[in-house]
Amino acid sequence: MPFEVIPIHVVQTVSSETGLTGNAPPLLREISELLLRLLESGEIAAIDLSALPLTPADLDWLQDRLGQGEIAITLQASGESTLNETACPGVWWVTHRNENGAVTSQFIEVAFVPDLVKAHPQDVEWGRERLELLLADF
Amino acid sequence: MPFEVIPIHVVQTVSSETGLTGNAPPLLREISELLLRLLESGEIAAIDLSALPLTPADLDWLQDRLGQGEIAITLQASGESTLNETACPGVWWVTHRNENGAVTSQFIEVAFVPDLVKAHPQDVEWGRERLELLLADF
Repeated sequence: MPFEVIPIHVVQTVSSETGLTGNAPPLLREISELLLRLLESGEIAAIDLSALPLTPADLDWLQDRLGQGEIAITLQASGESTLNETACPGVWWVTHRNENGAVTSQFIEVAFVPDLVKAHPQDVEWGRERLELLLADF
Repeated sequence: MPFEVIPIHVVQTVSSETGLTGNAPPLLREISELLLRLLESGEIAAIDLSALPLTPADLDWLQDRLGQGEIAITLQASGESTLNETACPGVWWVTHRNENGAVTSQFIEVAFVPDLVKAHPQDVEWGRERLELLLADF
């Protein structure tokens, strides 16, 4: 008689005490790898936290471990986005909200500066034209 | 008898009605030139407003003309600094305050992104080492 094959299903378990799934710690390792890539090649990356099986407790745990940095950015564009530096320079906690203030997505961005903060050359060109029109009135 | 030489002194006059000196409009022209340089060569520049003979009314006039953009940045480091995008993308209004909240200096920075917002590679390296130490505990 052959050995009985017992299929093992890995089930994501949430601790009833802490609400943690154990999915957050591997993210810290991934962030460390992404920081290395940023330093070595300037490659920027983002982790979409909304797409991962993370509980609010996981997100709190992650936020606590990453800490808070000196820079806080807000961007107003059909809802408020916040892009906060963590205590790990180069790691930014990005939260997008809709017009009602509800969180629509959350990312961890690994970059020297978040991409959304950079002015685009085309917009700069447009702004300069506007300024020139203003100057024509003096 | 030779012509009498009458020395002409240009005196900065402040309008008693508006408080304006007339020194602000030429700054708009300078900003437009700096935007052109930014677009053409990527050169960044800053105008130290504290070093110029500008009245509070001049500063208000300038701020009104430049308008308000979508991005507001605060930086906490021995006093709060604010780096606010104007309605002219690439033009940032930068205000540094001391620990008591008093303004210590004001700049207009012309750059795709203000220099102070960028994480320095050395700090990123240091942050990654801190993260690795944290990971060693799991």
